[in-house]
Amino acid sequence: MEGTKLENQFQKETLRLETFSDGVFCIAVTLLSLEIGVELKTDATNSDLFHLLIQKWPICLAYIISFVNVLLAWIGHHSLFKLLRKTNNSVLIINGLLLMLVALVPFPTKTLGLFLQTGALKTAVIFYTAYFVVVSLAFRLLWHAATCNRDLFISGVTESQIRPTTRNENIGLVCNTIILAAAFANPWVSLALSFAMWIYWIASE
Amino acid sequence: MEGTKLENQFQKETLRLETFSDGVFCIAVTLLSLEIGVELKTDATNSDLFHLLIQKWPICLAYIISFVNVLLAWIGHHSLFKLLRKTNNSVLIINGLLLMLVALVPFPTKTLGLFLQTGALKTAVIFYTAYFVVVSLAFRLLWHAATCNRDLFISGVTESQIRPTTRNENIGLVCNTIILAAAFANPWVSLALSFAMWIYWIASE
Amino acid sequence: MEGTKLENQFQKETLRLETFSDGVFCIAVTLLSLEIGVELKTDATNSDLFHLLIQKWPICLAYIISFVNVLLAWIGHHSLFKLLRKTNNSVLIINGLLLMLVALVPFPTKTLGLFLQTGALKTAVIFYTAYFVVVSLAFRLLWHAATCNRDLFISGVTESQIRPTTRNENIGLVCNTIILAAAFANPWVSLALSFAMWIYWIASE
Amino acid sequence: MEGTKLENQFQKETLRLETFSDGVFCIAVTLLSLEIGVELKTDATNSDLFHLLIQKWPICLAYIISFVNVLLAWIGHHSLFKLLRKTNNSVLIINGLLLMLVALVPFPTKTLGLFLQTGALKTAVIFYTAYFVVVSLAFRLLWHAATCNRDLFISGVTESQIRPTTRNENIGLVCNTIILAAAFANPWVSLALSFAMWIYWIASE
Repeated sequence: MEGTKLENQFQKETLRLETFSDGVFCIAVTLLSLEIGVELKTDATNSDLFHLLIQKWPICLAYIISFVNVLLAWIGHHSLFKLLRKTNNSVLIINGLLLMLVALVPFPTKTLGLFLQTGALKTAVIFYTAYFVVVSLAFRLLWHAATCNRDLFISGVTESQIRPTTRNENIGLVCNTIILAAAFANPWVSLALSFAMWIYWIASE
Repeated sequence: MEGTKLENQFQKETLRLETFSDGVFCIAVTLLSLEIGVELKTDATNSDLFHLLIQKWPICLAYIISFVNVLLAWIGHHSLFKLLRKTNNSVLIINGLLLMLVALVPFPTKTLGLFLQTGALKTAVIFYTAYFVVVSLAFRLLWHAATCNRDLFISGVTESQIRPTTRNENIGLVCNTIILAAAFANPWVSLALSFAMWIYWIASE
Repeated sequence: MEGTKLENQFQKETLRLETFSDGVFCIAVTLLSLEIGVELKTDATNSDLFHLLIQKWPICLAYIISFVNVLLAWIGHHSLFKLLRKTNNSVLIINGLLLMLVALVPFPTKTLGLFLQTGALKTAVIFYTAYFVVVSLAFRLLWHAATCNRDLFISGVTESQIRPTTRNENIGLVCNTIILAAAFANPWVSLALSFAMWIYWIASE
Repeated sequence: MEGTKLENQFQKETLRLETFSDGVFCIAVTLLSLEIGVELKTDATNSDLFHLLIQKWPICLAYIISFVNVLLAWIGHHSLFKLLRKTNNSVLIINGLLLMLVALVPFPTKTLGLFLQTGALKTAVIFYTAYFVVVSLAFRLLWHAATCNRDLFISGVTESQIRPTTRNENIGLVCNTIILAAAFANPWVSLALSFAMWIYWIASE
């Protein structure tokens, strides 16, 4: 009885952190849409509005890229915390850092969307891809902090259940670094590589 | 015992996805209101403000239409997931696509509200109604992905419980396509058909 | 066993609606703060910024009034749904209408804050107070729809548990109507009455 | 049986308040990011955008400071409510006041970020640090209201479990007051003290 109560207490701890984290992911992903809109032109004709909407493709593309990236990060966060039954200070702090980065995703997204058709395209793509290198670095650190202390894991989790997540975090970090490196050579190749990585994640999930 | 635990684990999986989806619906619906406001005029008289507020009717109408559409989509999402006990890759990806569309509803809503009294009315209504055709298409695809694999359903769900949802998804897609077609002929008829569809949904719920 | 399962199913139904409603209340209340901010003046001195901040009192006052009003509405919504174990169509639809009104609270709040120091003060206060008459009317309707069907109530709820909520909803509607009427005579008296009503609610809770 | 049901009822009461509070913390923290963005310059070169991004450091710094402050407040709120099993009027009202302050954190954050490089630096830092003195005062009041009535605590909570929270709330209030006092002497020393306090909290957690 006492044991069950303790176990439940532990589970509740992680649960509240997961719920809070989910909230940040959820709000960050929905706030992305706030940037997208057309300005009122009171004398607009039907074809004017049509062209105004068509011209919004760069910001819509940036929105789609960020939405998928944050959603994949959420799935990663989920599969990581599924294995934990409690947290310690390091996990809490690195998770806080990760949430801070996730909440700020609208900033690089806006930058990418606004400058995709300007002469500053390369800087915009480098800034955007570098941002996600930092995000995947925070994920890798979070997982490192968790695996340092096997006491945090749900009882019965074995090495063979931990290893796939370690591999995923490593691959994510390497892929994002390659995408960043590609941005220095050619921004469009870099964005194409992002799409390729998604297909890999979705297929391997 | 083992079986119950497994069952619970499965339920928790769906639960977290539902909670996340609910969050996106909830935030999208509340963010719609951000666009509505009057500009400060420091020398405004009482009748000035009265007229400023009255002139806000197009954006308020667009807000109401979108609020009801998103709420109906949420109810549909709810009744769909109520039958599932776990998810697979296809359901996860199509649900992600659906959430991306829901989160972006403020964009067509703003466009509709801003251009309702301009010469670009027809384009605005076509854009808005076409957007919801895509939303109902995503719903239909989600349901298709779910019904392809009967293993995803809660044990005991029968054909006769699945069929009404299939019918609803089909009707939704057909209705939204008719509303879009009407927009090409007459934007106001199209908006009136939206109202008629709501009454149908509410009565049939 | 079968009975317990059914009962749980019913509770889960209400729970998800309550969670969604809580989300709308929660986001509406937090979005109110988005309107408050000072514009950058790059050549500002310390006393310039001090005066800029002091001049923000009308929007801060409007924020405080709306925050308390939405919080009281949330408490009312909570105590209302605490008695229900399931919902029907009327309750769902009126609740949807109520959420639509709650989500739009930032609009009258902004209007009040912006025009509090202009010649349009009276119109702003009338608009604001009339808005909350509509909100309390929606609450009264929601409660009416719930009490029409005793089957919706948790088993064991008696007349004497239902009556206080009925009385509260009625008092709320009457109070808000008086506050609106007062706004036609004197806007400041109207706002003072709002404060008085809060003290009544808090004391009677 | 009756006792367990009552106990559960009490727990649910606190739970819903905690969930609502979590929501406000979560949204407030994510909304902070909305202020950060660069304006479109259609003729921007790569180095233009680079310099535009670099110039955003003050608002990014303000974002990081506020994110950590709100996250620490959330952890404090969490550890405080963990000990309570039900609430009374005073706790509800003071918690409402606290949420109102948390939801408004974007206002002082924006002010700090915008005026960090202007002549109004001192006023901006004083406003920001004074705001968090008020926040920690609200926390201290909330804890005072809770400890006044031992009936609110989970059965089995002892003096030795209550004392650390009392000490933390007192230290928080004193630290924030010192940080405010330092802002009158030197704004940068004040911000440095904020960082030092975080390290203290993280180490002592």
